[in-house]
Amino acid sequence: MMKLKIGIIGAGGIATNRHIPVLFKLNEVEVCGLYDVRKEQAEKVAQLFSIPFIAESEEALFNKVDAVIICTPNKFHHLSAIKALEAGKHVFCEKPMAISSKDAQAMEDAANAAQKVLQIGYHYRFKKDSLAAKKAISNGQIGDPVVVRVEAMRRRKVPGWGVFTNKEIQGGGCLIDYGCHLLDLAMWLMDFPEIESIQGQTYELVSRDADQVNEWGIYDATTIDVEDHATAYIRFTSGATMLFETSWAANVPEDKETLSISGTKGGMTVFPYSLNKATQGMLTTTKADWISGEDEELAQLRHFVSCCIEDTLPIVKANEAKRVSAIIEEIYRQSI
Amino acid sequence: MMKLKIGIIGAGGIATNRHIPVLFKLNEVEVCGLYDVRKEQAEKVAQLFSIPFIAESEEALFNKVDAVIICTPNKFHHLSAIKALEAGKHVFCEKPMAISSKDAQAMEDAANAAQKVLQIGYHYRFKKDSLAAKKAISNGQIGDPVVVRVEAMRRRKVPGWGVFTNKEIQGGGCLIDYGCHLLDLAMWLMDFPEIESIQGQTYELVSRDADQVNEWGIYDATTIDVEDHATAYIRFTSGATMLFETSWAANVPEDKETLSISGTKGGMTVFPYSLNKATQGMLTTTKADWISGEDEELAQLRHFVSCCIEDTLPIVKANEAKRVSAIIEEIYRQSI
Amino acid sequence: MMKLKIGIIGAGGIATNRHIPVLFKLNEVEVCGLYDVRKEQAEKVAQLFSIPFIAESEEALFNKVDAVIICTPNKFHHLSAIKALEAGKHVFCEKPMAISSKDAQAMEDAANAAQKVLQIGYHYRFKKDSLAAKKAISNGQIGDPVVVRVEAMRRRKVPGWGVFTNKEIQGGGCLIDYGCHLLDLAMWLMDFPEIESIQGQTYELVSRDADQVNEWGIYDATTIDVEDHATAYIRFTSGATMLFETSWAANVPEDKETLSISGTKGGMTVFPYSLNKATQGMLTTTKADWISGEDEELAQLRHFVSCCIEDTLPIVKANEAKRVSAIIEEIYRQSI
Amino acid sequence: MMKLKIGIIGAGGIATNRHIPVLFKLNEVEVCGLYDVRKEQAEKVAQLFSIPFIAESEEALFNKVDAVIICTPNKFHHLSAIKALEAGKHVFCEKPMAISSKDAQAMEDAANAAQKVLQIGYHYRFKKDSLAAKKAISNGQIGDPVVVRVEAMRRRKVPGWGVFTNKEIQGGGCLIDYGCHLLDLAMWLMDFPEIESIQGQTYELVSRDADQVNEWGIYDATTIDVEDHATAYIRFTSGATMLFETSWAANVPEDKETLSISGTKGGMTVFPYSLNKATQGMLTTTKADWISGEDEELAQLRHFVSCCIEDTLPIVKANEAKRVSAIIEEIYRQSI
Amino acid sequence: MMKLKIGIIGAGGIATNRHIPVLFKLNEVEVCGLYDVRKEQAEKVAQLFSIPFIAESEEALFNKVDAVIICTPNKFHHLSAIKALEAGKHVFCEKPMAISSKDAQAMEDAANAAQKVLQIGYHYRFKKDSLAAKKAISNGQIGDPVVVRVEAMRRRKVPGWGVFTNKEIQGGGCLIDYGCHLLDLAMWLMDFPEIESIQGQTYELVSRDADQVNEWGIYDATTIDVEDHATAYIRFTSGATMLFETSWAANVPEDKETLSISGTKGGMTVFPYSLNKATQGMLTTTKADWISGEDEELAQLRHFVSCCIEDTLPIVKANEAKRVSAIIEEIYRQSI
Amino acid sequence: MMKLKIGIIGAGGIATNRHIPVLFKLNEVEVCGLYDVRKEQAEKVAQLFSIPFIAESEEALFNKVDAVIICTPNKFHHLSAIKALEAGKHVFCEKPMAISSKDAQAMEDAANAAQKVLQIGYHYRFKKDSLAAKKAISNGQIGDPVVVRVEAMRRRKVPGWGVFTNKEIQGGGCLIDYGCHLLDLAMWLMDFPEIESIQGQTYELVSRDADQVNEWGIYDATTIDVEDHATAYIRFTSGATMLFETSWAANVPEDKETLSISGTKGGMTVFPYSLNKATQGMLTTTKADWISGEDEELAQLRHFVSCCIEDTLPIVKANEAKRVSAIIEEIYRQSI
Repeated sequence: MMKLKIGIIGAGGIATNRHIPVLFKLNEVEVCGLYDVRKEQAEKVAQLFSIPFIAESEEALFNKVDAVIICTPNKFHHLSAIKALEAGKHVFCEKPMAISSKDAQAMEDAANAAQKVLQIGYHYRFKKDSLAAKKAISNGQIGDPVVVRVEAMRRRKVPGWGVFTNKEIQGGGCLIDYGCHLLDLAMWLMDFPEIESIQGQTYELVSRDADQVNEWGIYDATTIDVEDHATAYIRFTSGATMLFETSWAANVPEDKETLSISGTKGGMTVFPYSLNKATQGMLTTTKADWISGEDEELAQLRHFVSCCIEDTLPIVKANEAKRVSAIIEEIYRQSI
Repeated sequence: MMKLKIGIIGAGGIATNRHIPVLFKLNEVEVCGLYDVRKEQAEKVAQLFSIPFIAESEEALFNKVDAVIICTPNKFHHLSAIKALEAGKHVFCEKPMAISSKDAQAMEDAANAAQKVLQIGYHYRFKKDSLAAKKAISNGQIGDPVVVRVEAMRRRKVPGWGVFTNKEIQGGGCLIDYGCHLLDLAMWLMDFPEIESIQGQTYELVSRDADQVNEWGIYDATTIDVEDHATAYIRFTSGATMLFETSWAANVPEDKETLSISGTKGGMTVFPYSLNKATQGMLTTTKADWISGEDEELAQLRHFVSCCIEDTLPIVKANEAKRVSAIIEEIYRQSI
Repeated sequence: MMKLKIGIIGAGGIATNRHIPVLFKLNEVEVCGLYDVRKEQAEKVAQLFSIPFIAESEEALFNKVDAVIICTPNKFHHLSAIKALEAGKHVFCEKPMAISSKDAQAMEDAANAAQKVLQIGYHYRFKKDSLAAKKAISNGQIGDPVVVRVEAMRRRKVPGWGVFTNKEIQGGGCLIDYGCHLLDLAMWLMDFPEIESIQGQTYELVSRDADQVNEWGIYDATTIDVEDHATAYIRFTSGATMLFETSWAANVPEDKETLSISGTKGGMTVFPYSLNKATQGMLTTTKADWISGEDEELAQLRHFVSCCIEDTLPIVKANEAKRVSAIIEEIYRQSI
Repeated sequence: MMKLKIGIIGAGGIATNRHIPVLFKLNEVEVCGLYDVRKEQAEKVAQLFSIPFIAESEEALFNKVDAVIICTPNKFHHLSAIKALEAGKHVFCEKPMAISSKDAQAMEDAANAAQKVLQIGYHYRFKKDSLAAKKAISNGQIGDPVVVRVEAMRRRKVPGWGVFTNKEIQGGGCLIDYGCHLLDLAMWLMDFPEIESIQGQTYELVSRDADQVNEWGIYDATTIDVEDHATAYIRFTSGATMLFETSWAANVPEDKETLSISGTKGGMTVFPYSLNKATQGMLTTTKADWISGEDEELAQLRHFVSCCIEDTLPIVKANEAKRVSAIIEEIYRQSI
Repeated sequence: MMKLKIGIIGAGGIATNRHIPVLFKLNEVEVCGLYDVRKEQAEKVAQLFSIPFIAESEEALFNKVDAVIICTPNKFHHLSAIKALEAGKHVFCEKPMAISSKDAQAMEDAANAAQKVLQIGYHYRFKKDSLAAKKAISNGQIGDPVVVRVEAMRRRKVPGWGVFTNKEIQGGGCLIDYGCHLLDLAMWLMDFPEIESIQGQTYELVSRDADQVNEWGIYDATTIDVEDHATAYIRFTSGATMLFETSWAANVPEDKETLSISGTKGGMTVFPYSLNKATQGMLTTTKADWISGEDEELAQLRHFVSCCIEDTLPIVKANEAKRVSAIIEEIYRQSI
Repeated sequence: MMKLKIGIIGAGGIATNRHIPVLFKLNEVEVCGLYDVRKEQAEKVAQLFSIPFIAESEEALFNKVDAVIICTPNKFHHLSAIKALEAGKHVFCEKPMAISSKDAQAMEDAANAAQKVLQIGYHYRFKKDSLAAKKAISNGQIGDPVVVRVEAMRRRKVPGWGVFTNKEIQGGGCLIDYGCHLLDLAMWLMDFPEIESIQGQTYELVSRDADQVNEWGIYDATTIDVEDHATAYIRFTSGATMLFETSWAANVPEDKETLSISGTKGGMTVFPYSLNKATQGMLTTTKADWISGEDEELAQLRHFVSCCIEDTLPIVKANEAKRVSAIIEEIYRQSI
């Protein structure tokens, strides 16, 4: 069997903690090279994982591989992705797709022109509970979704490392970095319905305190310029609505990551998967005690590799990820 | 001591199960008479509670009393209240104040003209946890409220008695009947800030099923014409936002009645009262193991009586209840 | 509406604590008289419940009623029932149907000859969870039952009152008095399949200790002559098997009343109702958070009355109760 | 000190995951060689554990050792064991002793003739809770056992590896592979009383579904020919009875591994060890918060080694293991 | 049967809420009269309980009865008790026996002189768990007691009624009113061993705050002159020691009422009864799931009545209660 | 940066399991050598941790280092410490400071004379909960401490290794080895107030049983000559009191390590940190869900190193540790 040759662009934490170790678990794959503008970091990572080739440029990497995994800061996603697609390479790009919907559109166009796979790293869709929820909705278990609730709430956990608190590089804070996952998942479970209106507001609630109490390390409270909290309300043309909230730094009793849906025939919570129905004279709750499948990060890349090899459309489509970016963009626009 | 003479208008369940038994616990009060268009019901209740006078008309009742308790269906609230105020009587009127904001305005005007007490029955404000929350916010415990969440969710509990499912008489369903309490409480805890925009949507999710499974009795699924579910999003000029959801018939794991607030200095949940802060290098939760005070229905009427006797403004002001009615009205308007 | 006229035979605890109060909740019923060989007891009960007629004999009672409720000790069930049926009266008879299967057969024959209702008091079938289980099995939720487990275990609770410890009058102990309920329910849920073989053994484990520790009062350890524990194994011609255990006086961590079934397509536990399946890549548990319906003792008599009025066959059929008695009889036979 | 020289026969999972690592923890032991018909597997394992000698035949192994550990599929247990015993070697043989009671008898005879140790791998007897239970019964804590209950129930966990689903090689499924442990333990706790009759039935409940949901890997649903579920009822001449159930694939709420005993003076559950008594006017539960001792797999082999060195009879006697095999044989016979 | 004629002295809360209703449950007793210096209160209570005789003086009461129940404030216990004993009446006197040990001694002397029953109301000894503990210690379950711990801690519950906060009348606060029960119980379980030394300290921790938060009503923070908290350490000549703490108003997570003992052979906690041992290679906990017996207040008076009728010594002996009073007196002495 | 050169005296378990691994985490430190009277042990440890220098004598070690960590048995603490201080070295000495208060005084004097750091290893003060408690008390959260409770209770866990059961070498058992930590912490939280009197008693409760059941290995029950249990009561001149208990071998339901304080304005428990107050009409509990900081053993040595480098007084002062030793000495004196 010919193995799919893969190159890494951006050798930071996401690459080293998540994607590279996962790729080594996939038999159909060979990690052939990597590129990072920070030469030294590239060398450190290449040595750590015995990656044979350190590219001097993205172009040099393209020559050696069939596909690239893009793990750069958000601001650079579209640049690398478009270059790779134009070079005829499949692209797996970390979320969010891009900071602006215009850039996302350009990525989608490039993928279409190149007829190559472009998958965005919304791995929440590959969680076992998410897949079970998707299957149950498709089977009509809850009828049509009408009310969707999203809470992606972390208690005082502003990331104290990397560039997460820099708006120019990342495009925003908790919404574009964390809330985007749950937003994408909610939209996917609803089958990306047509939107009638979006209302949203971001906040810089607590992260500017000098005497911060923060569970995830120490950040510079004088330079952080991204939101740490956001709310939104999306109304769909079907009449459905979504209540959305995300935070990096909420003063709440505990972290909360919930997505629940009320439909015309039943209700569902996704984490953990559970179904509420009213049938046969009973109000019932069905829980999944065990779900077959594998870890979402492994499942996500296995799926990408399979799409590349079999030339099929990925589950996380460029068009969908673009719509998620557009929603985020609109919430930021209203919050200026 | 002269006792405050009180008359009852509307001798249905709210009067007999809630207000009349509570009035008998108040020493400063004498229940002097009652009026109901349903003569027979009036007689039954008068006998049950040994109320000495059954009025033939509201006017006849006014002659005997200092104040009235209005427990009629929503549609009639303003008619009785205005008549009573014009007759120089204090008025305690069940929530909602009125079906339309126009009617509510007329009630407020009548109270102002008469210089009499007009208190609306938003008794959630008198719950011990609510009072503790109000006190804590006033003391600056959470700073300025910026995100408020309300969930007033009942699981498959459409009221199967009375006129609750009749839109013409009640003005709506779960929103105007149940959600209004939490909406009023949230607005009060926020000090009734100026609203920038309201978005809302009502639903008739499940209540039309022929084979209904309903915990609170049986209603006519062919005639019910009120909503059983609603969502809303309110943006205030301060930048604060409220996420709101209410239901009579949700397919959810269990009933939920939550109100929580994230402020600039801390977070709070109201039921039960609890405070989350980040201070002194710690993330803390403060719970109230015991709160002094009495039952909210007793506290509400004790307060009304005291306002009547001492000629002071009630906690639940006409102007505030009118604003709650206006919000509800706007959500209904958008849902047509 | 003509009311069903009902007479009581046997005015002991079962009549006064269970059936008579329940009858007063049924609109379609009139309790017209009662008979007890203990004249004084009959008078006390008649006065307590304002029952207008104290019969001098069963025959005298038959003249005044349409139906009788038989609450005598087990030994007398068949005598009263057959007399009543021959007099053209409907009969509700407490469980067990009779001490011997021969007597039970005679009762069934009498009912058939008289074309009257003969319902045995196996009220466990009318529990809400039991009805839900029956419905779910009928809908094919677990496929065909293949293994059934029954545990009707009380911890040191020999009844310290009445005649429960007298074998001559009651026919036995925990098996005929308590285990019979779960045995009947299990057989009903399985649709009374054909039996291939029965194995069983009774015990007198602990109830003969002089220094008894017993939660339900004090009995005479020197005269008790009934079993306090029993096990059994029933093999059906279908290949299905039932594991059965019952006790009045087990040294176990806590009381246990369980009935569970493994079927070809799923598993079920009945108290509380819960379903285990393996579908869609998941192992699931479905619980009933709420089941519509009413108390089993009320449901049982409402059903009896309805059968009498509409001349329909009761859910607990004479033929079935007879088979339960035959199983018990066989276990006793093997234990001599 | 001379070390006991040990050889391994059968280098599959039981040898590599359980016995070999345990042997390395015993000071009195030297693992001298191993034999497996699969040469390649033998080499792999020898290298992994640095075992110095790979035998070409069982006989070649016998020349180098004092004792053998037999870890072959069930079908071959008796062949290897008898050869080893005839060669004058002590034998530790995995459970079950043999597929047929005839083969088990031959093993026992060989051990008697050779005057060598023959211990069967029923390590459940060496669990700390089992040893505590045995001690308590011996001390008379529960009097004579009269009712014994065994539930060895796994929820949808058919072993998806090895030869477990092949009847010709293993002799059966869950009963001979898993239930045998609890059956042996129960018999031991009862002191292997005389049996009056055995009733039993095996099932192939769920394991033939094409779309199996199975927690322990994937097996071939078209070739599996062993039972996945069994029930039994054993009556002893003392009047005691045992209720027995075992499964690999039950649709139950969770795995269950219980053994409990009601005796003439008290009750006991074994996992975890707990005692129920009725004394001094109290119903009591005694739990073991901590039990001294070591892991059962270590204890089992330490005991075997000690028996070899000191020429004493092992706790798990050939005669007892043979009786367990005979019970299993009888249940299979009734299920054809 | 002649009934024991009983008179009540002091018709306050203890009499009306505890002793009189309990006396009505005892067949062997007749409540013949009552006396209270507050004539009006005496009349109210006599009418409420249909007590036939309201005495003008204690002496007048003595003429009508065989025994008296003394429920006056602590200060008067000894006066009434001695008069009654001198009049030849049996005496049940509420705890504490007296404020001073001198008064207690005089009571004991009077009882001895009169040869009448004198029982003090330490009903904690009659709790089911206490009786079980006493029995277990007598049986040698824990060997000799060496360390005893008492915590009688209430969270912010100063009694807001009666004379509890008046030192002149009651002799003290939480120690003499509440802690005395646990102190007496501990001494009894230890068999009232000889004391080597007492150390103790009382506090007025929180009860003087003007803005008191108190769960048990409102008291006058300006006049309260009793302790709300106390600690003590008692060393016995055997070498055993007792750690003691009691409070009415502690700022603790929850109320605590614990008594535990470490002995030479085991440990015990009394509420609820539980035993810790180290035997047979195990650390065990034995709990009582159910204890036979009746409510302690009923048991206490049944015992008193039985002592009066059978002329036997009560379990709570005058000599013992006197020693409890002496310990309390010494703690107060050290705290001045 | 010059690193602080550190030497280890005593290469037993405390050195190898605790201090040496921790020192390797501190950047400012270099472990230069070690000394142990047991030459072989010194070599083993030096090799294990690649420590470059094995000293032949303490003096030889002093020549190479700036500071020493003393981990010898208690009896030798003062000898090594004084020599080191006289040699001009900073000293970190394991707790207890010394067996006698005289020796402790000598150590303090030596430190004062040398003007070097002398820190005792009371690392409980560096636990995150302890630091939070200290900060809260300093902020006046509970007012003045008045009652302090200490329970340092282990259930049947006599250390079965080392010299812990040898009185001559260690000076005592659970009190000097384990209870000392909590005693020191309690004294520190109270700000080491002046003592009025000490009462105390030690016990040898259970540790002499031949058939010991012990969770922490096996010790020689015939030679153990230290206490396994102790109680004490300390009265301070302020009126405050401390109730103290410690054990290695208690028969209690579970291990307990509690320190709680009632103050004039609130109550506190330290493990985990929690605060009880009565304010604003509420009884509240405040818990710390998360406390910033690091492991106490790391924090302790980081602090020591920082004191050495910056020449500041350590948190655990010689004078304080000396007072802890004096209390222990007094309790032992009273127990002879």
